[in-house]
Amino acid sequence: MKKHIIFILFIAFTSVLFAQQNKQFTLDELIPGGKNFYNYYPRILEQFQWHGDELVMLRHDSVFRVNPLSPDKKKLAFRFNEILKNGNERNGNVSNVSFDREGGDNLIFSTPDGMGVYDLKTGRVISSIGFPKNSANREFSPGHAYLAYTKDNNLYITDGTGKETAISSEKNKGIVCGRAVHRDEFGIKGGIFWSPNGNKLAFYRMDETMVADYPIVDISTRIATEKSIKYPMAGEKSHEVTIGVYDIKTGQTVYLKTGEPREKYLTNVAWSPDGKFIYVAELNREQNHLKMNRYDAGSGDWDKTLFEETHPKYVEPENPVLFVKNNPNQFIWQSERDGFNHLYLYDVSGKLLKQLTKGDWEVTDVVGFDEKGDHLFFISTNPTPIDRHAYSVNVKSGKINRLTTVPGMHNIAVSRSGRYLVSRYSSHDNPGEADLIDTRTGKAVTLASARNPFAAINMPPAELGTLKADDDKTDLFYRMIKPADFDASKKYPVVIYVYGGPHSQMVQNRWRYGSGGWETYMAQKGYIVFVMDNRGTTYRGRDFEDITYRQLGVEEAKDQMRGVEFLKSLPYVDADRLGIHGWSYGGFMTINMLLRYPDVFKVGVAGGPVIDWKYYEVMYGERYMDTPQENPDGYREASLLNKAGNLKSRLLIIHGDEDPVVVLQQSLQFLKSSIDAGTHPDYFIYPGHEHNMVGRDRVHLHEHITRYFEDFCW
Amino acid sequence: MKKHIIFILFIAFTSVLFAQQNKQFTLDELIPGGKNFYNYYPRILEQFQWHGDELVMLRHDSVFRVNPLSPDKKKLAFRFNEILKNGNERNGNVSNVSFDREGGDNLIFSTPDGMGVYDLKTGRVISSIGFPKNSANREFSPGHAYLAYTKDNNLYITDGTGKETAISSEKNKGIVCGRAVHRDEFGIKGGIFWSPNGNKLAFYRMDETMVADYPIVDISTRIATEKSIKYPMAGEKSHEVTIGVYDIKTGQTVYLKTGEPREKYLTNVAWSPDGKFIYVAELNREQNHLKMNRYDAGSGDWDKTLFEETHPKYVEPENPVLFVKNNPNQFIWQSERDGFNHLYLYDVSGKLLKQLTKGDWEVTDVVGFDEKGDHLFFISTNPTPIDRHAYSVNVKSGKINRLTTVPGMHNIAVSRSGRYLVSRYSSHDNPGEADLIDTRTGKAVTLASARNPFAAINMPPAELGTLKADDDKTDLFYRMIKPADFDASKKYPVVIYVYGGPHSQMVQNRWRYGSGGWETYMAQKGYIVFVMDNRGTTYRGRDFEDITYRQLGVEEAKDQMRGVEFLKSLPYVDADRLGIHGWSYGGFMTINMLLRYPDVFKVGVAGGPVIDWKYYEVMYGERYMDTPQENPDGYREASLLNKAGNLKSRLLIIHGDEDPVVVLQQSLQFLKSSIDAGTHPDYFIYPGHEHNMVGRDRVHLHEHITRYFEDFCW
Repeated sequence: MKKHIIFILFIAFTSVLFAQQNKQFTLDELIPGGKNFYNYYPRILEQFQWHGDELVMLRHDSVFRVNPLSPDKKKLAFRFNEILKNGNERNGNVSNVSFDREGGDNLIFSTPDGMGVYDLKTGRVISSIGFPKNSANREFSPGHAYLAYTKDNNLYITDGTGKETAISSEKNKGIVCGRAVHRDEFGIKGGIFWSPNGNKLAFYRMDETMVADYPIVDISTRIATEKSIKYPMAGEKSHEVTIGVYDIKTGQTVYLKTGEPREKYLTNVAWSPDGKFIYVAELNREQNHLKMNRYDAGSGDWDKTLFEETHPKYVEPENPVLFVKNNPNQFIWQSERDGFNHLYLYDVSGKLLKQLTKGDWEVTDVVGFDEKGDHLFFISTNPTPIDRHAYSVNVKSGKINRLTTVPGMHNIAVSRSGRYLVSRYSSHDNPGEADLIDTRTGKAVTLASARNPFAAINMPPAELGTLKADDDKTDLFYRMIKPADFDASKKYPVVIYVYGGPHSQMVQNRWRYGSGGWETYMAQKGYIVFVMDNRGTTYRGRDFEDITYRQLGVEEAKDQMRGVEFLKSLPYVDADRLGIHGWSYGGFMTINMLLRYPDVFKVGVAGGPVIDWKYYEVMYGERYMDTPQENPDGYREASLLNKAGNLKSRLLIIHGDEDPVVVLQQSLQFLKSSIDAGTHPDYFIYPGHEHNMVGRDRVHLHEHITRYFEDFCW
Repeated sequence: MKKHIIFILFIAFTSVLFAQQNKQFTLDELIPGGKNFYNYYPRILEQFQWHGDELVMLRHDSVFRVNPLSPDKKKLAFRFNEILKNGNERNGNVSNVSFDREGGDNLIFSTPDGMGVYDLKTGRVISSIGFPKNSANREFSPGHAYLAYTKDNNLYITDGTGKETAISSEKNKGIVCGRAVHRDEFGIKGGIFWSPNGNKLAFYRMDETMVADYPIVDISTRIATEKSIKYPMAGEKSHEVTIGVYDIKTGQTVYLKTGEPREKYLTNVAWSPDGKFIYVAELNREQNHLKMNRYDAGSGDWDKTLFEETHPKYVEPENPVLFVKNNPNQFIWQSERDGFNHLYLYDVSGKLLKQLTKGDWEVTDVVGFDEKGDHLFFISTNPTPIDRHAYSVNVKSGKINRLTTVPGMHNIAVSRSGRYLVSRYSSHDNPGEADLIDTRTGKAVTLASARNPFAAINMPPAELGTLKADDDKTDLFYRMIKPADFDASKKYPVVIYVYGGPHSQMVQNRWRYGSGGWETYMAQKGYIVFVMDNRGTTYRGRDFEDITYRQLGVEEAKDQMRGVEFLKSLPYVDADRLGIHGWSYGGFMTINMLLRYPDVFKVGVAGGPVIDWKYYEVMYGERYMDTPQENPDGYREASLLNKAGNLKSRLLIIHGDEDPVVVLQQSLQFLKSSIDAGTHPDYFIYPGHEHNMVGRDRVHLHEHITRYFEDFCW
């Protein structure tokens, strides 16, 4: 369920440091899409890029050069508004800058209309390419000689002269080239893969013609129109993916001979540094057997299987192989095979050379190598799962160095030599900061900070804590938001905000522990808000996550009940006024809790909920549930349809009628089951909306949710 | 909006005649579809048919013969269970009996599987035809030699031997033969018209290929599927209808040369008694110009236009010409041309011979002639629009006789000679009765009565009254249901139940003034229920109805506000707790009232509501509103979309997601407008339901509606 953007991770407010004014926030100030949202959203406006060991900083339209030894002396290099004045270059706001190649002087910049290359040395724009009309999924070749992109279902390249070459020319719209496949699972973010020297282009080709159409109705047209999507439901026929390799010189495409069965997952495509081979992490449809296969990029022939991974539950590769800098015979592979996500060093024969990291914590991100290739930089959950810290590992010696110390959620960019980092982070009491760290001395200097927009406001406090999971062993983290004028002698209603599914962690040591604007809103209305990550969520290791295998909703609910018991034990909680709200997996969890524990909650609001996993898609659904044919009991136990008669609470279900992720059939089937069972959920639809309810309607949505709690939980 | 079955017309309960037990009804007892509905539903189980001047009565499976001179002496003729014992005849429950030809002995009976002919004289089943599999729209030929029927989009006949002859063989499913056309407007009930001697078959052929598809999603399949319907929206391309005439002898079909423009309405098809001509009431798409055209049934040639009718607003023919018995040169035509629906006598040259009825009342039904053709029997609103009485008119002298006297809603069957009638009726204090009336003496004898299922129950009283319309002249009828334990010193909340659209009359002198089960339910929960027929509804003449032309919702709302003012003037009404509920046009009216008078109602519940007439269909929509292109101001004024921001009340909208009459786009567009305007209606969907919410889910529906009033209006 990757497409569910968890907004609350990006919205944040200060806790009370010094007593201040009592402000009544509006949802327009608290919810993304609201008119005044950015007035109260802490941001760092500066972008930082390493240019060798020199720092380049973008602020608004200005590019500064910064010597890390004297970071307070910023030198203005140029301003985009000036160099983009004449018509030759692409106009509009520069949204992103990056360097073409490590240590080079070519600064690549993008605007909404196209991209350009600025030579820092000569101070001139040396090339630019406009984005072709209706193009999407744009990927520049290394060196920026070509732009690859999709239009509709086909893949094209252009060299910037306006000449367009079709790489694919599929007439059937059910065959799609150059786009992400497998519904963006397995870490897949795109479908275009340039070879290291930019002479070849690998791409996904997805044949969906055999996949059932799911009908979506667009009511915004004069007469409503149907827009069907290809939606492979669990246990049903899925799509078939292949990988093409286009040779710019010859204009020919070969396809990797990935063979039978055709229904499998071709994930984490990577080129060998010499451009001769393509590595593909191939997973069977059952998702319990991975093969790391290597193919000849020239002939498409299978070359060898370097290694395999199996697991009785599932294997979930999410990162491609990463070749060691200056050593094309070795690469890094990330695997959860020992129970936590760790780094493994392999050689290209497929031999495991060593496990580079180990422990009951997870590598969450691999940043890259220093220029020599000696050190690999990464982020991990060591020493606490709610923090993220930067580390380096010496690939040869295995020695690990911790690079960040301030508690919080760190993300880093490393200078070419590896000596300097820029770390961007926030923590529960810090709205955001970018520090320059000298790894040699450990010295950190603040480069930029986010303004605390609530410094003068008496905010609802955000607190952190842990509880034991239903296994009586595992620590679960929670955050609790209390009204600003909290009085422990009073009784408060509580709203539990829940997600609870894989690929998520709601409680982190980021700004206000990740608490979102709606939590602030509810707290100022007099509710306590409680958020806890149950088992089944991520970054806590395999066992923590995969306990839900073949029985989604069972263990998660037991853990959430531990939260409920804790809340009920608090003298200031009104146990008769408990509510619960969640979206997507959290919508599933909301209804699930109401039906499994019908006497606990007064109110629930479920958005875009999965109701029965048989209506969810193959990739995510079968990973956790297998197919309905293989696991009929598990599907029955997880289904909310046959529990619809248990509903005693007030339940509002909300759904976007064009939701292509959790399809409308899910919530409508629940209504049908409830009607059959004589129970009465409430319902609302956001016309034209997909899964995430973004934009200004998000404010209306949160008013609608709040209103329901006010109607029935206050 | 003919497809909206107004259930409350068929559900009825007694007012309190003698004080009795206080029963708390469940919705299962009050709502059609409920498990125990028939325990409390007053019915006459007997069916009556005239066999010459002898009465034939069907009760359960038994057929009795009754001499009208001694109606208490019923003679059992036979029992269907006995004659249908052997396998030759059609099994199952006999649902209907009728005589083949006036005065003949052949009793036609139907079962779910087929039909048969029983000879009363010989006491034997002399023929039977089974219904072909998947057949629909079955029509027997006169004499019952053939059965015509449709399968899918084509028309067939069979002679009962199992041989099937295709009359049409349209490959394109967008072309439909033998079915009702023009969306059942203009009195159209079917698409098959046998010639008087059964040798020819006229049928509608409707080409819908040029009509836009409206997408409907069926969520009951494993993966939701789209079932598009052809739905011509106001101002958009409509379908094209022609009339074919199939000759059984030659097997050839000719089409009536109805010519250009192709978008027009071919309504009220009738054969001349000699089978040589077909009469068609042809109406232009603008619906303001009718031509009574006659075509040669052999060649299809246009023969002549007998007369024309025009009106600056609209002309709405709803009844075919009826030839005078024994005089094939004269026919009866019903028209509202003088302001009320009346009978006109024409000759076949098109000459108007005389107006047979006249007055500020309406002919509501033409029953037929006596055997000589001297007298025509009809039903009318004379002397009061809430009653229906039977009359005869002497076609030659014009003399009119009233035949029923007991106040109520009468419907009659006339014996062959015209001397006897069976009148079935109910009135506000009579749950139902069938009387035998001797027109010579005026003497009436009760043949059968419905049991009053509430005789021993202390029922909420149903009262009748009138108020002045917004024009300060016109009387509007209302009924009011009060709680059984009504106490005028208390304050009661009120629910207004509203329909308010054309083709409707909610308040009639039928059982409990037409009050339905839900009204009883609400009254026993302590609400007063109020129902009033505003101008724009039917049976009150042209001016009463067509005041709404080009501005639906405006005058109706003003009239309903007169009801509100009346209610507020009552000392026992709590003006702060007014609610309103309606379905279909009544759903439109409910939201319309809430948005035009935002401070009046606390709560509204609107089912299957029209939101903007541009989303409604051509035939009904353009009659009252013209096209959106012709009447942009009127459409804007009638639209609820641009008034969505006015919503202050609680509003629940309910819709069947497969509604083919008021499409889902209507309510979803209202949600979208409300979201844009920052207002908050509530919503519910009944999956798989069409416009009328029939069956057991109707109970759930009424619980859902009630719950909303209890939540927000109590």
